[in-house]
Amino acid sequence: MVKMAGATPVYISLRSKPMDGKKWSSSDWTLDPKELASKFNSKTKAIILNTPHNPIGKVYTKEELQLIADLCIKYDTLCISDEVYEWLVYSGNKHLKIATFPGMWERTITIGSAGKTFSVTGWKLGWSIGPYHLIKHLQTVQQNSLYTCATPLQEALAQAFWTDMKRMDDPECYFNSLPKELEVKRDRMAHLLESVGLKPVVPDGGYFIIADVSLLDADLSDMKNSNEPYDYKFVKWMTKNKKLSAIPVSAFCNKETKLQFEKFVRFCFIKKDSTLDAAEEIIKAWSRQKS
Amino acid sequence: MVKMAGATPVYISLRSKPMDGKKWSSSDWTLDPKELASKFNSKTKAIILNTPHNPIGKVYTKEELQLIADLCIKYDTLCISDEVYEWLVYSGNKHLKIATFPGMWERTITIGSAGKTFSVTGWKLGWSIGPYHLIKHLQTVQQNSLYTCATPLQEALAQAFWTDMKRMDDPECYFNSLPKELEVKRDRMAHLLESVGLKPVVPDGGYFIIADVSLLDADLSDMKNSNEPYDYKFVKWMTKNKKLSAIPVSAFCNKETKLQFEKFVRFCFIKKDSTLDAAEEIIKAWSRQKS
Repeated sequence: MVKMAGATPVYISLRSKPMDGKKWSSSDWTLDPKELASKFNSKTKAIILNTPHNPIGKVYTKEELQLIADLCIKYDTLCISDEVYEWLVYSGNKHLKIATFPGMWERTITIGSAGKTFSVTGWKLGWSIGPYHLIKHLQTVQQNSLYTCATPLQEALAQAFWTDMKRMDDPECYFNSLPKELEVKRDRMAHLLESVGLKPVVPDGGYFIIADVSLLDADLSDMKNSNEPYDYKFVKWMTKNKKLSAIPVSAFCNKETKLQFEKFVRFCFIKKDSTLDAAEEIIKAWSRQKS
Repeated sequence: MVKMAGATPVYISLRSKPMDGKKWSSSDWTLDPKELASKFNSKTKAIILNTPHNPIGKVYTKEELQLIADLCIKYDTLCISDEVYEWLVYSGNKHLKIATFPGMWERTITIGSAGKTFSVTGWKLGWSIGPYHLIKHLQTVQQNSLYTCATPLQEALAQAFWTDMKRMDDPECYFNSLPKELEVKRDRMAHLLESVGLKPVVPDGGYFIIADVSLLDADLSDMKNSNEPYDYKFVKWMTKNKKLSAIPVSAFCNKETKLQFEKFVRFCFIKKDSTLDAAEEIIKAWSRQKS
């Protein structure tokens, strides 16, 4: 999309600190401040931020966002902030909106999602928040970029917000109950993946967990399309041989960063307990097979 | 889509009988039986039928459909029958489903639309009806061809059908009330178009009316893109100079039939009365200008 708009995309990767035998967390993945600054110049029109991050699950801290805000202000850069997992943040973490940082409202478009907020991904409904001088341009393109945005769904979404905004401190409020429910599933999934020799990066937000699969040393020699990245082959092998499915993380990468992530796959843990039970059965059998 | 599927599309045009000074009706437009038969051979996989027809508004008669059914059976051809305007049929006409003709159920996929049936075009919801051996293939491609089909909308559609199927003989039933309401608007629109020198083809179904604009002899010499078909230029001219909008009919045609229809434009009459009032004002002023 950036290229279609005639712009030049510039990429920067989150990189992990050494693990030192500790539990690996999404907060170990950071942007290098110097590297980030080096990507900005007077031609930098916009930065696309994603917090909580998909697929790593990183929730950007106040300091990290301040760094980005300072650069946006210094270079007069717009910030497109994808915050669709804003309510899915786990214990000890807090989602912050970069639009609330001084000097950022007038240059930020914040993107939210009914699908992610209220677990109705099939509705394909979302919103953008920003100042009129930015939003008015989105209104121009909306008619040609949206396929459907049915009125009853918009009304249902408004009612859902209305209901839950009036009970923000109530544990029954969906903004509180969903992350609480998911945190248990996250921890369960992390333990499961560890048990079979995958190294999970425990996410602070979102409902995905990525895991390094390189230690498994799976025998993928009978996989076709040998020029595919390792993670593509791995998920196909796992789906076929273990009946367990995941997404290759390099699908999220550009050419330059593919290599950094091709030993990672992404699992989804927003699943019924019965589905996680089935995954546990598979993983336990897999584990027995290995030992 | 036909070409993407690796097939060869074969076209046939509806052609109008001479008008003989009578009111021009969509029923004056017919398929030539010999021409139609000549398009079928042992390689003919499927025919795409549309009744009531968009944009002409023709409602195929029993005899016409029997002719198509006979050919489908003779050549073992599937029939994809687009019947999205099935409930929008005006006095003296009756919509028939070709799937109900002897020998046709097992070879017909009938397509319906919530948007057209219940005036909720933004919902982008519809259905296909057919025998399992055909529908099962649609189920295979559905996941990759539908973007969204939200559950609450499906439920609302089911409820709407449930409500109106229980009162099919009631004038309040939407299947009865909508065409009744639209027939008045159709007649009003036909008279309006006639009054300014356009020659409307009064439709027996649907909510569009096409009109021959050639008698108007509009001066389009200042229009850019002179290699565009006449109707494209005409609707742009009318939108700009008369503030009245329509759709060029040749947009519905292939290269070979474009010429036959480039003097026709399509108006939509499923509009609030206040919108038709505004159209009337415009057309009356236009009429005064001409005389």
